[in-house]
Amino acid sequence: MESTYEIEGMTCGHCVAAVGRALHKLAGVRDARVEIGRAVVVSDAPVDRAAIAAALNEAGYRLRE
Amino acid sequence: MESTYEIEGMTCGHCVAAVGRALHKLAGVRDARVEIGRAVVVSDAPVDRAAIAAALNEAGYRLRE
Repeated sequence: MESTYEIEGMTCGHCVAAVGRALHKLAGVRDARVEIGRAVVVSDAPVDRAAIAAALNEAGYRLRE
Repeated sequence: MESTYEIEGMTCGHCVAAVGRALHKLAGVRDARVEIGRAVVVSDAPVDRAAIAAALNEAGYRLRE
């Protein structure tokens, strides 16, 4: 399954890389396709949205509600 | 001596870090204080401006003329 997340605070390619690293570390995430402002997360089962938000916050970004 | 350079293309903290790494690698550079859009390079002798520009270009940024 694929879930799309809107992300605030991303401005450049380094941000894309940082968000990708943060998402790939999450349990259950098989792949993440990231561009500035959004990410598509590929997983077998739904990934807890709070875990996504926490990972983004830790990397310096915010999940848009 | 200190030389200040205006830099285009920097948007975030990752850019600040990338520019800092690029400048620190240059021969003769003792320190670089970087913020978004500018860097102050500390050196004993003048650093070739073309070398500064090339290092910034390689890192994905542009030295403002």
